[in-house]
Amino acid sequence: MTVEYLGTNYSGWQCQAKGVGVQEIIENALSEFFKTKIKIHGSGRTDKGVHAKGQVAHFDVDTKIKEYNIIRAVNIILPDDIKIQSLEIVDNDFHAQYSAKSKIYEYKAYISRYERPMFEIDHARIVPPINMDLVREKAKLLVGTHDFKAFCAVGSQIKDTTRTIHSLDIIEEDGAIIFRFEGNGFLYNMIRIIIGTLVFLGKGQISEDAIEKMLETGDRNYGGKTYAAKGLTLKEVKY
Amino acid sequence: MTVEYLGTNYSGWQCQAKGVGVQEIIENALSEFFKTKIKIHGSGRTDKGVHAKGQVAHFDVDTKIKEYNIIRAVNIILPDDIKIQSLEIVDNDFHAQYSAKSKIYEYKAYISRYERPMFEIDHARIVPPINMDLVREKAKLLVGTHDFKAFCAVGSQIKDTTRTIHSLDIIEEDGAIIFRFEGNGFLYNMIRIIIGTLVFLGKGQISEDAIEKMLETGDRNYGGKTYAAKGLTLKEVKY
Repeated sequence: MTVEYLGTNYSGWQCQAKGVGVQEIIENALSEFFKTKIKIHGSGRTDKGVHAKGQVAHFDVDTKIKEYNIIRAVNIILPDDIKIQSLEIVDNDFHAQYSAKSKIYEYKAYISRYERPMFEIDHARIVPPINMDLVREKAKLLVGTHDFKAFCAVGSQIKDTTRTIHSLDIIEEDGAIIFRFEGNGFLYNMIRIIIGTLVFLGKGQISEDAIEKMLETGDRNYGGKTYAAKGLTLKEVKY
Repeated sequence: MTVEYLGTNYSGWQCQAKGVGVQEIIENALSEFFKTKIKIHGSGRTDKGVHAKGQVAHFDVDTKIKEYNIIRAVNIILPDDIKIQSLEIVDNDFHAQYSAKSKIYEYKAYISRYERPMFEIDHARIVPPINMDLVREKAKLLVGTHDFKAFCAVGSQIKDTTRTIHSLDIIEEDGAIIFRFEGNGFLYNMIRIIIGTLVFLGKGQISEDAIEKMLETGDRNYGGKTYAAKGLTLKEVKY
């Protein structure tokens, strides 16, 4: 199934000590509908406050109920900020996480001296001035296969920090800037650290060669701050 | 000044018997800052639940405080869903309503069998199927100077219901459909009735020549329902 959710009110995909996870809410709704305990497996976690337009999850159930009727009924149980968008029967060897080929994330921001209420829910704010030409130029360095150790939250337990970013497009649209990432996987906080680093660099708050240094040394300290979670949306998972 | 606001929690630009108006909130914040009663004049009303990215209002005040410092301080007093975006000194004969040459409104919708949490705040939903080619074709009939009596909420006191729509562009963008109107003025509920009529027509729920009949007869009954307020945003006022 694909699920769309507004992450604002959740601890992320998974439940945490503090706060409810999106996964748990969906499991409870499916379990209520099917009258049996349902466990779902997502394509991966999303952080606290991160949104999704196309999170994918799979689950096992023995039923003859038509997909459309399942979605309709379960969406009534689900809260307004989480809704199933599609549901299809898959082969037994399909796994939402392990079968995923790539993921598309979008990070949305707007440049303004003042907060913009219409953008607050899913955009981060960048206070001008920012050299967007420099941002665009430096963003190109991230495309390809690299050790992204310096772009991973400190304290992460992951050993292999090599990932491939297939593309990073920067699109200006109706007052917003969209950073669209496609990659084979992303480390914990990786996109938010990339955005913070590009923004700090574009504003002259860190060295212009910060990204080169981070890729060479693996040192997080050369980067900018981890940018706001609310700007990030999991757009699509490709299989 | 230009103001951006999320209309969700307000009775509209003006205060009503039930609920607080955006105008009143801004007047209170300016009055608190300037320590004198400030009255503001908007370019026009927006309905309950309608948003604005570029509402314009003027007010009179005797001050030497720089525009930037006024915005910063007043925005701190204002709630998260209303923020001033710009402020400039104008001639004494400028009037936010009477000096306006045209207004641009955007009505945003998405086509989906299911509710989409990421779109809920400022988009209306259209349940498929809908013949968008027919919608595009019929929308052209509305451009120009017409008597829009049939597109005005019943009970409106306005006598002259002739208005000019300079352009009506229908743009598909990232899963959403944006109806962008530029006109010299819009009647009460006019855009929401136009959208409801186009949607009903595209779904075959009313006659294909509904718009022709409405323009000819002035009869509201040929049209579709008044579509949701939350899809509508006042984008810009031109002077």
